[in-house]
Amino acid sequence: MDGLDSAQLRTLAAVVAEGSFDAAARLLHVTPSAVSQRIKALEETVGQVLVRRARPCVATDAGRPLLRLAGQLALLEREALADARGPLAGGGRTRVAVVVNADSLATWFPAALARLPQRAGLSFDLRQDDQDHTAELLRDGSVTAAVTAQREAVQGCRVLRLGAMRYRALATPEFAASHFPAGFAAAALASTPLLVFDRKDRVQHRFIRAVVGRPLDPPVNYVPSVPAFSEAIRLGLGWGLVPEQIAQADLTAGRCVDLAPGRHLDAPLYWQHWRLESDVLNALTVAVRAVAAETLR
Amino acid sequence: MDGLDSAQLRTLAAVVAEGSFDAAARLLHVTPSAVSQRIKALEETVGQVLVRRARPCVATDAGRPLLRLAGQLALLEREALADARGPLAGGGRTRVAVVVNADSLATWFPAALARLPQRAGLSFDLRQDDQDHTAELLRDGSVTAAVTAQREAVQGCRVLRLGAMRYRALATPEFAASHFPAGFAAAALASTPLLVFDRKDRVQHRFIRAVVGRPLDPPVNYVPSVPAFSEAIRLGLGWGLVPEQIAQADLTAGRCVDLAPGRHLDAPLYWQHWRLESDVLNALTVAVRAVAAETLR
Repeated sequence: MDGLDSAQLRTLAAVVAEGSFDAAARLLHVTPSAVSQRIKALEETVGQVLVRRARPCVATDAGRPLLRLAGQLALLEREALADARGPLAGGGRTRVAVVVNADSLATWFPAALARLPQRAGLSFDLRQDDQDHTAELLRDGSVTAAVTAQREAVQGCRVLRLGAMRYRALATPEFAASHFPAGFAAAALASTPLLVFDRKDRVQHRFIRAVVGRPLDPPVNYVPSVPAFSEAIRLGLGWGLVPEQIAQADLTAGRCVDLAPGRHLDAPLYWQHWRLESDVLNALTVAVRAVAAETLR
Repeated sequence: MDGLDSAQLRTLAAVVAEGSFDAAARLLHVTPSAVSQRIKALEETVGQVLVRRARPCVATDAGRPLLRLAGQLALLEREALADARGPLAGGGRTRVAVVVNADSLATWFPAALARLPQRAGLSFDLRQDDQDHTAELLRDGSVTAAVTAQREAVQGCRVLRLGAMRYRALATPEFAASHFPAGFAAAALASTPLLVFDRKDRVQHRFIRAVVGRPLDPPVNYVPSVPAFSEAIRLGLGWGLVPEQIAQADLTAGRCVDLAPGRHLDAPLYWQHWRLESDVLNALTVAVRAVAAETLR
Protein backbone atom coordinates (compact mmCIF):
# COMPACT_ATOMS: atom_id res chain seq x y z
CA MET A 1 0.00 0.00 0.00
CA ASP A 2 1.22 3.50 -0.84
CA GLY A 3 1.64 6.11 1.88
CA LEU A 4 -1.60 7.57 3.14
CA ASP A 5 -2.51 11.20 2.54
CA SER A 6 -2.58 13.09 5.83
CA ALA A 7 -5.26 15.59 4.67
CA GLN A 8 -7.47 12.62 3.80
CA LEU A 9 -6.86 11.04 7.21
CA ARG A 10 -7.66 14.33 8.94
CA THR A 11 -10.86 14.54 6.93
CA LEU A 12 -11.85 11.01 7.94
CA ALA A 13 -11.30 11.93 11.60
CA ALA A 14 -13.35 15.12 11.21
CA VAL A 15 -16.27 13.30 9.56
CA VAL A 16 -16.49 10.76 12.38
CA ALA A 17 -15.88 13.27 15.19
CA GLU A 18 -18.44 15.76 13.85
CA GLY A 19 -20.90 13.14 12.63
CA SER A 20 -21.50 14.46 9.11
CA PHE A 21 -19.73 15.53 5.93
CA ASP A 22 -21.21 19.04 6.23
CA ALA A 23 -20.03 19.54 9.81
CA ALA A 24 -16.57 18.21 8.89
CA ALA A 25 -16.43 20.67 6.01
CA ARG A 26 -17.23 23.57 8.38
CA LEU A 27 -14.57 22.42 10.82
CA LEU A 28 -11.90 22.07 8.11
CA HIS A 29 -12.96 25.23 6.26
CA VAL A 30 -13.42 23.38 2.97
CA THR A 31 -16.51 22.59 0.87
CA PRO A 32 -18.62 19.48 1.58
CA SER A 33 -17.70 18.28 -1.88
CA ALA A 34 -13.98 18.45 -0.98
CA VAL A 35 -14.73 16.34 2.09
CA SER A 36 -16.58 13.83 0.00
CA GLN A 37 -13.76 13.63 -2.56
CA ARG A 38 -11.09 13.11 0.11
CA ILE A 39 -13.03 10.31 1.80
CA LYS A 40 -13.63 8.68 -1.57
CA ALA A 41 -9.95 8.95 -2.51
CA LEU A 42 -8.90 7.42 0.81
CA GLU A 43 -11.42 4.61 0.34
CA GLU A 44 -10.01 3.94 -3.12
CA THR A 45 -6.44 3.85 -1.78
CA VAL A 46 -7.41 1.37 0.92
CA GLY A 47 -9.91 -0.53 -1.21
CA GLN A 48 -12.53 -0.52 1.55
CA VAL A 49 -15.54 1.53 2.59
CA LEU A 50 -14.29 3.50 5.61
CA VAL A 51 -17.32 5.53 6.68
CA ARG A 52 -20.88 4.36 7.02
CA ARG A 53 -22.94 7.28 5.66
CA ALA A 54 -25.50 7.46 8.45
CA ARG A 55 -26.66 10.03 10.98
CA PRO A 56 -24.23 10.30 12.59
CA CYS A 57 -21.51 9.02 10.24
CA VAL A 58 -19.54 6.19 11.85
CA ALA A 59 -16.33 4.39 10.94
CA THR A 60 -16.69 0.94 9.43
CA ASP A 61 -14.55 -1.94 10.73
CA ALA A 62 -12.07 -1.10 7.98
CA GLY A 63 -12.22 2.59 8.85
CA ARG A 64 -11.38 2.18 12.54
CA PRO A 65 -7.63 1.50 12.29
CA LEU A 66 -7.29 4.50 9.98
CA LEU A 67 -9.28 6.69 12.33
CA ARG A 68 -6.98 5.73 15.12
CA LEU A 69 -3.93 6.41 12.99
CA ALA A 70 -5.38 9.83 12.12
CA GLY A 71 -5.84 10.65 15.80
CA GLN A 72 -2.31 9.58 16.67
CA LEU A 73 -0.76 11.52 13.79
CA ALA A 74 -2.76 14.64 14.64
CA LEU A 75 -1.65 14.61 18.27
CA LEU A 76 2.04 14.06 17.41
CA GLU A 77 1.94 16.58 14.57
CA ARG A 78 0.40 19.34 16.71
CA GLU A 79 2.91 18.74 19.48
CA ALA A 80 5.83 18.89 17.05
CA LEU A 81 4.43 22.11 15.59
CA ALA A 82 3.91 23.61 19.05
CA ASP A 83 7.49 22.71 19.98
CA ALA A 84 8.78 24.18 16.75
CA ARG A 85 6.76 27.39 17.08
CA GLY A 86 6.97 27.85 20.83
CA PRO A 87 3.99 27.57 23.16
CA LEU A 88 2.61 31.04 22.59
CA ALA A 89 2.58 31.09 18.80
CA GLY A 90 -1.13 30.29 18.71
CA GLY A 91 -2.53 28.38 15.78
CA GLY A 92 -3.96 24.88 16.14
CA ARG A 93 -4.84 23.89 19.68
CA THR A 94 -4.09 20.36 20.80
CA ARG A 95 -7.32 18.40 21.22
CA VAL A 96 -7.42 16.05 24.17
CA ALA A 97 -10.27 13.54 23.85
CA VAL A 98 -11.05 11.52 26.99
CA VAL A 99 -14.00 9.36 27.98
CA VAL A 100 -14.78 9.44 31.72
CA ASN A 101 -17.31 7.53 33.84
CA ALA A 102 -20.23 9.71 34.97
CA ASP A 103 -19.39 9.81 38.71
CA SER A 104 -15.72 10.74 38.11
CA LEU A 105 -16.71 13.41 35.61
CA ALA A 106 -19.16 14.85 38.17
CA THR A 107 -16.57 14.89 40.96
CA TRP A 108 -12.77 14.79 40.68
CA PHE A 109 -11.93 14.68 36.96
CA PRO A 110 -12.24 18.41 36.06
CA ALA A 111 -9.62 19.20 38.73
CA ALA A 112 -7.12 17.05 36.81
CA LEU A 113 -7.65 19.15 33.68
CA ALA A 114 -7.18 22.34 35.70
CA ARG A 115 -3.82 21.05 36.88
CA LEU A 116 -2.30 20.64 33.42
CA PRO A 117 0.64 23.02 33.07
CA GLN A 118 0.12 24.18 29.49
CA ARG A 119 -3.65 24.12 29.47
CA ALA A 120 -3.91 27.36 27.51
CA GLY A 121 -2.96 25.47 24.38
CA LEU A 122 -5.42 22.60 24.82
CA SER A 123 -9.01 21.93 23.84
CA PHE A 124 -10.83 19.27 25.84
CA ASP A 125 -13.21 16.90 24.16
CA LEU A 126 -14.77 14.96 27.03
CA ARG A 127 -17.31 12.15 26.68
CA GLN A 128 -19.34 10.61 29.42
CA ASP A 129 -18.66 6.91 29.74
CA ASP A 130 -21.24 4.48 28.83
CA GLN A 131 -19.18 1.43 29.93
CA ASP A 132 -19.56 -0.85 26.89
CA HIS A 133 -18.66 2.02 24.65
CA THR A 134 -15.33 2.91 26.25
CA ALA A 135 -13.29 0.15 24.67
CA GLU A 136 -14.70 0.96 21.25
CA LEU A 137 -13.92 4.68 21.59
CA LEU A 138 -10.32 3.86 22.55
CA ARG A 139 -9.99 1.27 19.83
CA ASP A 140 -11.24 3.47 17.03
CA GLY A 141 -9.19 6.44 18.19
CA SER A 142 -12.16 8.66 19.06
CA VAL A 143 -10.53 9.17 22.45
CA THR A 144 -6.91 9.08 23.58
CA ALA A 145 -7.62 7.96 27.12
CA ALA A 146 -10.36 6.78 29.47
CA VAL A 147 -11.29 6.76 33.15
CA THR A 148 -13.16 3.49 33.33
CA ALA A 149 -14.12 0.47 35.42
CA GLN A 150 -12.64 -1.73 32.69
CA ARG A 151 -9.45 -3.34 33.88
CA GLU A 152 -8.55 -5.29 30.74
CA ALA A 153 -6.26 -3.26 28.49
CA VAL A 154 -7.74 -2.34 25.15
CA GLN A 155 -5.34 -3.38 22.40
CA GLY A 156 -2.57 -0.79 22.05
CA CYS A 157 -3.37 0.83 25.40
CA ARG A 158 -1.65 0.97 28.78
CA VAL A 159 -3.71 0.55 31.97
CA LEU A 160 -3.04 2.15 35.36
CA ARG A 161 -5.10 1.62 38.49
CA LEU A 162 -6.30 4.96 39.84
CA GLY A 163 -7.92 3.81 43.09
CA ALA A 164 -11.49 3.08 44.06
CA MET A 165 -14.55 5.29 44.24
CA ARG A 166 -16.31 4.61 47.54
CA TYR A 167 -20.11 4.45 47.52
CA ARG A 168 -22.45 4.73 50.52
CA ALA A 169 -26.13 3.72 50.73
CA LEU A 170 -28.22 6.88 51.14
CA ALA A 171 -31.87 7.74 51.76
CA THR A 172 -33.76 10.47 53.59
CA PRO A 173 -34.35 9.91 57.33
CA GLU A 174 -38.12 9.63 56.61
CA PHE A 175 -37.56 7.08 53.84
CA ALA A 176 -35.30 5.03 56.12
CA ALA A 177 -37.85 5.10 58.97
CA SER A 178 -40.75 4.10 56.74
CA HIS A 179 -39.04 1.43 54.58
CA PHE A 180 -36.28 0.10 56.85
CA PRO A 181 -37.78 0.25 60.37
CA ALA A 182 -35.96 -2.99 61.24
CA GLY A 183 -32.72 -2.00 59.48
CA PHE A 184 -31.16 -2.65 56.09
CA ALA A 185 -32.31 -6.27 55.67
CA ALA A 186 -33.40 -8.56 52.88
CA ALA A 187 -37.16 -8.51 53.56
CA ALA A 188 -37.38 -4.72 53.34
CA LEU A 189 -34.83 -4.44 50.51
CA ALA A 190 -36.77 -6.75 48.21
CA SER A 191 -39.80 -4.45 48.09
CA THR A 192 -38.25 -0.98 48.55
CA PRO A 193 -37.79 1.25 45.49
CA LEU A 194 -34.17 1.38 44.44
CA LEU A 195 -32.49 4.06 42.32
CA VAL A 196 -30.14 2.84 39.60
CA PHE A 197 -28.20 5.11 37.21
CA ASP A 198 -28.90 3.13 34.03
CA ARG A 199 -29.19 -0.45 32.80
CA LYS A 200 -25.41 -0.92 32.95
CA ASP A 201 -25.13 0.25 36.55
CA ARG A 202 -24.71 -2.81 38.80
CA VAL A 203 -23.31 -1.17 41.95
CA GLN A 204 -26.61 -1.24 43.84
CA HIS A 205 -27.19 -4.91 43.07
CA ARG A 206 -23.60 -5.82 43.97
CA PHE A 207 -23.97 -3.95 47.26
CA ILE A 208 -27.23 -5.72 48.14
CA ARG A 209 -25.63 -9.06 47.36
CA ALA A 210 -22.62 -8.23 49.53
CA VAL A 211 -24.77 -7.09 52.46
CA VAL A 212 -27.55 -9.70 52.49
CA GLY A 213 -25.55 -12.55 50.97
CA ARG A 214 -27.79 -13.17 47.97
CA PRO A 215 -29.15 -11.27 44.97
CA LEU A 216 -32.53 -9.52 45.28
CA ASP A 217 -34.76 -8.03 42.63
CA PRO A 218 -36.29 -4.84 44.09
CA PRO A 219 -38.39 -2.37 42.07
CA VAL A 220 -35.98 -0.16 40.15
CA ASN A 221 -36.12 3.50 39.09
CA TYR A 222 -33.59 4.53 36.42
CA VAL A 223 -32.15 8.04 36.90
CA PRO A 224 -29.24 8.54 34.46
CA SER A 225 -27.96 11.92 35.70
CA VAL A 226 -25.60 12.39 38.65
CA PRO A 227 -27.38 15.47 40.09
CA ALA A 228 -30.87 14.02 39.42
CA PHE A 229 -29.85 10.78 41.17
CA SER A 230 -28.97 12.61 44.40
CA GLU A 231 -32.01 14.86 44.07
CA ALA A 232 -34.30 11.82 43.67
CA ILE A 233 -32.87 10.42 46.91
CA ARG A 234 -33.38 13.74 48.71
CA LEU A 235 -36.99 13.78 47.43
CA GLY A 236 -37.64 10.33 48.89
CA LEU A 237 -38.14 8.59 45.54
CA GLY A 238 -35.88 5.70 46.54
CA TRP A 239 -32.53 4.79 48.05
CA GLY A 240 -29.28 4.42 46.15
CA LEU A 241 -25.51 4.29 46.29
CA VAL A 242 -23.80 7.66 46.09
CA PRO A 243 -20.04 8.43 45.81
CA GLU A 244 -18.79 9.60 49.22
CA GLN A 245 -17.59 12.87 47.67
CA ILE A 246 -21.20 13.68 46.76
CA ALA A 247 -22.85 12.05 49.80
CA GLN A 248 -20.92 14.10 52.34
CA ALA A 249 -22.92 17.34 52.05
CA ASP A 250 -26.30 15.57 52.35
CA LEU A 251 -25.12 13.51 55.33
CA THR A 252 -23.64 16.50 57.15
CA ALA A 253 -26.78 18.59 56.59
CA GLY A 254 -28.98 15.75 57.85
CA ARG A 255 -30.91 15.60 54.54
CA CYS A 256 -29.83 11.98 54.16
CA VAL A 257 -28.72 9.13 56.37
CA ASP A 258 -26.31 6.26 55.75
CA LEU A 259 -28.60 3.21 55.53
CA ALA A 260 -25.82 0.74 56.24
CA PRO A 261 -23.28 2.52 58.45
CA GLY A 262 -19.86 0.93 58.26
CA ARG A 263 -20.71 -0.76 54.94
CA HIS A 264 -19.69 0.63 51.58
CA LEU A 265 -18.88 -0.46 48.05
CA ASP A 266 -15.49 0.34 46.51
CA ALA A 267 -15.52 0.49 42.71
CA PRO A 268 -11.98 0.38 41.24
CA LEU A 269 -11.22 2.80 38.42
CA TYR A 270 -8.52 2.58 35.77
CA TRP A 271 -6.76 4.99 33.43
CA GLN A 272 -6.44 3.49 29.97
CA HIS A 273 -4.47 5.46 27.40
CA TRP A 274 -2.82 4.96 24.05
CA ARG A 275 0.81 3.82 24.14
CA LEU A 276 2.10 7.00 22.56
CA GLU A 277 5.01 9.29 23.41
CA SER A 278 3.02 12.48 23.66
CA ASP A 279 3.86 15.31 26.05
CA VAL A 280 0.22 16.25 26.47
CA LEU A 281 -0.81 12.68 27.20
CA ASN A 282 2.07 12.26 29.66
CA ALA A 283 1.13 15.47 31.47
CA LEU A 284 -2.52 14.43 31.58
CA THR A 285 -1.57 11.03 33.00
CA VAL A 286 0.48 12.70 35.75
CA ALA A 287 -2.38 15.10 36.61
CA VAL A 288 -5.06 12.38 36.57
CA ARG A 289 -2.99 10.10 38.82
CA ALA A 290 -2.26 12.94 41.25
CA VAL A 291 -5.89 14.06 41.63
CA ALA A 292 -7.10 10.44 41.77
CA ALA A 293 -4.58 9.71 44.53
CA GLU A 294 -5.99 12.61 46.55
CA THR A 295 -9.68 11.82 46.05
CA LEU A 296 -10.04 8.05 45.50
CA ARG A 297 -9.37 5.22 47.92
CA MET B 1 -53.59 -9.90 9.94
CA ASP B 2 -54.67 -11.99 12.91
CA GLY B 3 -54.68 -10.50 16.42
CA LEU B 4 -51.26 -10.15 17.95
CA ASP B 5 -50.19 -12.21 20.92
CA SER B 6 -49.68 -9.96 23.96
CA ALA B 7 -46.98 -12.16 25.52
CA GLN B 8 -45.06 -11.90 22.26
CA LEU B 9 -45.45 -8.12 22.22
CA ARG B 10 -44.30 -7.90 25.85
CA THR B 11 -41.28 -10.00 24.93
CA LEU B 12 -40.43 -7.72 22.02
CA ALA B 13 -40.60 -4.71 24.35
CA ALA B 14 -38.41 -6.47 26.92
CA VAL B 15 -35.75 -7.41 24.35
CA VAL B 16 -35.44 -3.83 23.12
CA ALA B 17 -35.65 -2.24 26.58
CA GLU B 18 -33.08 -4.61 28.09
CA GLY B 19 -30.90 -4.82 25.00
CA SER B 20 -30.52 -8.59 24.74
CA PHE B 21 -32.49 -11.83 24.63
CA ASP B 22 -30.77 -13.04 27.82
CA ALA B 23 -31.60 -9.91 29.80
CA ALA B 24 -35.20 -10.01 28.55
CA ALA B 25 -35.44 -13.64 29.67
CA ARG B 26 -34.25 -12.68 33.16
CA LEU B 27 -36.76 -9.85 33.33
CA LEU B 28 -39.66 -12.03 32.19
CA HIS B 29 -38.57 -15.06 34.24
CA VAL B 30 -38.52 -17.34 31.19
CA THR B 31 -35.69 -19.11 29.36
CA PRO B 32 -33.72 -17.31 26.62
CA SER B 33 -35.01 -19.95 24.23
CA ALA B 34 -38.62 -18.99 25.08
CA VAL B 35 -37.76 -15.37 24.31
CA SER B 36 -36.24 -16.39 21.01
CA GLN B 37 -39.29 -18.49 20.07
CA ARG B 38 -41.73 -15.68 20.89
CA ILE B 39 -39.84 -13.13 18.82
CA LYS B 40 -39.64 -15.58 15.96
CA ALA B 41 -43.36 -16.33 16.17
CA LEU B 42 -44.21 -12.63 16.18
CA GLU B 43 -41.93 -12.08 13.19
CA GLU B 44 -43.67 -14.90 11.36
CA THR B 45 -47.11 -13.42 12.13
CA VAL B 46 -46.05 -10.00 10.84
CA GLY B 47 -43.89 -11.33 8.04
CA GLN B 48 -41.02 -8.98 8.90
CA VAL B 49 -37.82 -9.02 10.90
CA LEU B 50 -38.67 -6.98 14.02
CA VAL B 51 -35.44 -7.00 16.01
CA ARG B 52 -31.94 -6.41 14.76
CA ARG B 53 -29.84 -8.95 16.69
CA ALA B 54 -27.04 -6.61 17.72
CA ARG B 55 -25.49 -5.44 20.96
CA PRO B 56 -27.77 -3.91 22.07
CA CYS B 57 -30.75 -5.39 20.22
CA VAL B 58 -32.74 -2.66 18.46
CA ALA B 59 -36.11 -2.57 16.76
CA THR B 60 -36.08 -2.60 12.96
CA ASP B 61 -38.27 -0.14 11.05
CA ALA B 62 -40.94 -2.83 10.96
CA GLY B 63 -40.50 -3.51 14.66
CA ARG B 64 -41.02 0.08 15.83
CA PRO B 65 -44.81 0.33 15.45
CA LEU B 66 -45.19 -2.96 17.30
CA LEU B 67 -42.87 -1.80 20.05
CA ARG B 68 -44.98 1.28 20.48
CA LEU B 69 -48.15 -0.79 20.54
CA ALA B 70 -46.57 -3.02 23.19
CA GLY B 71 -45.74 0.01 25.35
CA GLN B 72 -49.23 1.43 25.02
CA LEU B 73 -50.90 -1.89 25.81
CA ALA B 74 -48.64 -2.44 28.82
CA LEU B 75 -49.44 0.96 30.30
CA LEU B 76 -53.21 0.58 29.81
CA GLU B 77 -53.16 -3.03 31.01
CA ARG B 78 -51.27 -2.23 34.21
CA GLU B 79 -53.55 0.67 34.99
CA ALA B 80 -56.64 -1.47 34.47
CA LEU B 81 -55.14 -4.15 36.70
CA ALA B 82 -54.22 -1.62 39.38
CA ASP B 83 -57.76 -0.22 39.26
CA ALA B 84 -59.20 -3.71 39.47
CA ARG B 85 -56.95 -4.78 42.33
CA GLY B 86 -56.75 -1.52 44.24
CA PRO B 87 -53.59 0.52 44.67
CA LEU B 88 -52.07 -1.50 47.49
CA ALA B 89 -52.33 -4.96 46.00
CA GLY B 90 -48.68 -4.92 44.88
CA GLY B 91 -47.71 -6.94 41.85
CA GLY B 92 -46.65 -5.24 38.62
CA ARG B 93 -45.66 -1.60 39.04
CA THR B 94 -46.53 0.88 36.32
CA ARG B 95 -43.41 1.86 34.41
CA VAL B 96 -43.19 5.50 33.41
CA ALA B 97 -40.56 6.05 30.73
CA VAL B 98 -39.62 9.67 30.05
CA VAL B 99 -36.73 11.28 28.20
CA VAL B 100 -35.61 14.62 29.68
CA ASN B 101 -33.03 17.17 28.52
CA ALA B 102 -29.89 17.17 30.70
CA ASP B 103 -30.38 20.58 32.34
CA SER B 104 -34.02 19.88 33.30
CA LEU B 105 -33.10 16.47 34.67
CA ALA B 106 -30.36 18.08 36.77
CA THR B 107 -32.67 20.78 38.14
CA TRP B 108 -36.48 20.78 38.28
CA PHE B 109 -37.66 17.47 36.80
CA PRO B 110 -37.19 15.14 39.82
CA ALA B 111 -39.52 17.42 41.84
CA ALA B 112 -42.31 16.68 39.34
CA LEU B 113 -41.93 12.94 39.99
CA ALA B 114 -42.02 13.54 43.74
CA ARG B 115 -45.33 15.34 43.33
CA LEU B 116 -47.20 12.43 41.73
CA PRO B 117 -49.98 11.32 44.06
CA GLN B 118 -49.72 7.56 43.60
CA ARG B 119 -45.97 7.36 43.23
CA ALA B 120 -45.69 4.25 45.41
CA GLY B 121 -47.03 2.20 42.52
CA LEU B 122 -44.72 3.60 39.85
CA SER B 123 -41.29 2.76 38.52
CA PHE B 124 -39.46 5.55 36.71
CA ASP B 125 -37.40 4.80 33.65
CA LEU B 126 -35.71 8.11 32.87
CA ARG B 127 -33.39 8.78 29.94
CA GLN B 128 -31.21 11.77 29.42
CA ASP B 129 -32.09 13.58 26.24
CA ASP B 130 -29.76 13.55 23.40
CA GLN B 131 -31.89 15.90 21.26
CA ASP B 132 -31.93 14.04 17.92
CA HIS B 133 -32.84 10.90 19.76
CA THR B 134 -35.96 12.20 21.51
CA ALA B 135 -38.30 11.96 18.55
CA GLU B 136 -37.13 8.43 17.82
CA LEU B 137 -37.67 7.31 21.43
CA LEU B 138 -41.21 8.71 21.37
CA ARG B 139 -41.92 7.29 17.95
CA ASP B 140 -40.79 3.77 18.76
CA GLY B 141 -42.56 3.75 22.11
CA SER B 142 -39.39 3.50 24.22
CA VAL B 143 -40.69 6.49 26.17
CA THR B 144 -44.19 7.77 26.86
CA ALA B 145 -43.24 11.42 27.17
CA ALA B 146 -40.39 13.89 26.77
CA VAL B 147 -39.12 17.20 28.11
CA THR B 148 -37.44 18.56 25.03
CA ALA B 149 -36.47 21.61 23.01
CA GLN B 150 -38.33 20.09 20.04
CA ARG B 151 -41.49 22.01 19.33
CA GLU B 152 -42.78 19.96 16.39
CA ALA B 153 -45.15 17.23 17.57
CA VAL B 154 -43.90 13.71 16.98
CA GLN B 155 -46.60 11.75 15.15
CA GLY B 156 -49.22 10.56 17.63
CA CYS B 157 -48.04 12.93 20.36
CA ARG B 158 -49.45 16.07 21.97
CA VAL B 159 -47.14 19.04 22.65
CA LEU B 160 -47.40 21.55 25.51
CA ARG B 161 -45.11 24.51 26.08
CA LEU B 162 -43.58 24.33 29.55
CA GLY B 163 -41.73 27.67 29.65
CA ALA B 164 -38.14 28.62 29.03
CA MET B 165 -34.96 27.74 30.83
CA ARG B 166 -32.94 30.92 31.34
CA TYR B 167 -29.17 30.74 30.85
CA ARG B 168 -26.56 33.23 32.07
CA ALA B 169 -22.94 33.60 30.90
CA LEU B 170 -20.62 32.60 33.76
CA ALA B 171 -16.89 32.61 34.47
CA THR B 172 -14.68 33.09 37.52
CA PRO B 173 -13.79 36.70 38.40
CA GLU B 174 -10.12 35.92 37.54
CA PHE B 175 -11.10 34.44 34.16
CA ALA B 176 -13.25 37.49 33.38
CA ALA B 177 -10.45 39.90 34.34
CA SER B 178 -7.83 38.11 32.28
CA HIS B 179 -9.89 37.29 29.15
CA PHE B 180 -12.49 40.06 29.08
CA PRO B 181 -10.68 43.13 30.47
CA ALA B 182 -12.60 45.33 28.00
CA GLY B 183 -15.91 43.50 28.51
CA PHE B 184 -17.81 40.75 26.73
CA ALA B 185 -16.93 41.77 23.16
CA ALA B 186 -16.24 40.06 19.86
CA ALA B 187 -12.44 40.43 19.83
CA ALA B 188 -12.02 38.70 23.19
CA LEU B 189 -14.78 36.14 22.57
CA ALA B 190 -13.20 34.84 19.37
CA SER B 191 -10.07 33.64 21.15
CA THR B 192 -11.35 32.77 24.65
CA PRO B 193 -11.95 29.11 25.54
CA LEU B 194 -15.65 28.32 25.57
CA LEU B 195 -17.35 25.40 27.34
CA VAL B 196 -20.01 23.54 25.36
CA PHE B 197 -22.02 20.56 26.67
CA ASP B 198 -21.72 18.39 23.55
CA ARG B 199 -21.77 18.70 19.76
CA LYS B 200 -25.54 19.25 19.73
CA ASP B 201 -25.42 22.10 22.25
CA ARG B 202 -25.81 25.39 20.37
CA VAL B 203 -26.82 27.69 23.25
CA GLN B 204 -23.37 29.27 23.62
CA HIS B 205 -23.08 29.99 19.90
CA ARG B 206 -26.63 31.38 19.76
CA PHE B 207 -25.85 33.63 22.72
CA ILE B 208 -22.64 34.93 21.15
CA ARG B 209 -24.49 35.67 17.93
CA ALA B 210 -27.25 37.50 19.81
CA VAL B 211 -24.77 39.59 21.81
CA VAL B 212 -22.15 40.50 19.19
CA GLY B 213 -24.44 40.36 16.16
CA ARG B 214 -22.52 37.73 14.21
CA PRO B 215 -21.34 34.15 14.67
CA LEU B 216 -17.85 33.53 16.07
CA ASP B 217 -15.78 30.36 16.19
CA PRO B 218 -13.94 30.36 19.55
CA PRO B 219 -11.89 27.40 20.81
CA VAL B 220 -14.33 24.90 22.31
CA ASN B 221 -14.08 22.45 25.21
CA TYR B 222 -16.77 19.75 25.34
CA VAL B 223 -17.94 18.87 28.88
CA PRO B 224 -21.03 16.63 28.63
CA SER B 225 -21.99 16.47 32.32
CA VAL B 226 -24.04 19.13 34.13
CA PRO B 227 -21.97 19.11 37.35
CA ALA B 228 -18.65 18.88 35.44
CA PHE B 229 -19.69 21.82 33.27
CA SER B 230 -20.16 24.10 36.30
CA GLU B 231 -17.03 22.73 37.95
CA ALA B 232 -14.98 23.43 34.79
CA ILE B 233 -16.19 27.05 34.91
CA ARG B 234 -15.30 27.33 38.63
CA LEU B 235 -11.84 25.93 37.83
CA GLY B 236 -11.27 28.61 35.18
CA LEU B 237 -11.18 26.20 32.22
CA GLY B 238 -13.50 28.41 30.19
CA TRP B 239 -16.75 30.35 30.24
CA GLY B 240 -20.18 28.96 29.46
CA LEU B 241 -23.92 29.37 29.73
CA VAL B 242 -25.44 27.92 32.91
CA PRO B 243 -29.15 27.60 33.83
CA GLU B 244 -30.02 30.31 36.34
CA GLN B 245 -31.15 27.65 38.85
CA ILE B 246 -27.59 26.29 38.89
CA ALA B 247 -25.79 29.62 38.46
CA GLN B 248 -27.35 31.25 41.52
CA ALA B 249 -25.19 29.57 44.18
CA ASP B 250 -21.90 30.35 42.37
CA LEU B 251 -22.94 33.97 41.76
CA THR B 252 -24.06 34.53 45.35
CA ALA B 253 -20.88 32.99 46.75
CA GLY B 254 -18.74 35.16 44.45
CA ARG B 255 -17.11 32.09 42.84
CA CYS B 256 -18.44 33.24 39.47
CA VAL B 257 -19.52 36.47 37.85
CA ASP B 258 -22.15 37.18 35.18
CA LEU B 259 -20.07 38.07 32.09
CA ALA B 260 -22.94 39.86 30.38
CA PRO B 261 -25.15 41.33 33.11
CA GLY B 262 -28.66 41.97 31.89
CA ARG B 263 -28.22 39.58 28.95
CA HIS B 264 -29.44 36.00 28.99
CA LEU B 265 -30.63 33.26 26.69
CA ASP B 266 -34.11 31.74 27.11
CA ALA B 267 -34.42 28.19 25.75
CA PRO B 268 -38.07 27.11 25.39
CA LEU B 269 -38.95 23.60 26.57
CA TYR B 270 -41.88 21.42 25.56
CA TRP B 271 -43.70 18.42 27.02
CA GLN B 272 -44.43 15.88 24.31
CA HIS B 273 -46.50 12.85 25.28
CA TRP B 274 -48.46 10.08 23.66
CA ARG B 275 -52.13 10.80 22.99
CA LEU B 276 -53.33 8.16 25.39
CA GLU B 277 -56.00 8.16 28.07
CA SER B 278 -53.81 7.02 30.91
CA ASP B 279 -54.28 8.13 34.52
CA VAL B 280 -50.56 7.94 35.20
CA LEU B 281 -49.70 9.99 32.13
CA ASN B 282 -52.36 12.57 32.98
CA ALA B 283 -51.09 12.89 36.55
CA LEU B 284 -47.51 13.20 35.30
CA THR B 285 -48.53 15.91 32.84
CA VAL B 286 -50.22 17.87 35.65
CA ALA B 287 -47.15 17.54 37.91
CA VAL B 288 -44.67 18.44 35.17
CA ARG B 289 -46.66 21.53 34.15
CA ALA B 290 -46.99 22.66 37.77
CA VAL B 291 -43.28 22.35 38.61
CA ALA B 292 -42.28 23.85 35.25
CA ALA B 293 -44.58 26.82 35.90
CA GLU B 294 -42.81 27.41 39.22
CA THR B 295 -39.24 27.06 37.96
CA LEU B 296 -39.15 28.04 34.26
CA ARG B 297 -39.77 31.45 32.70
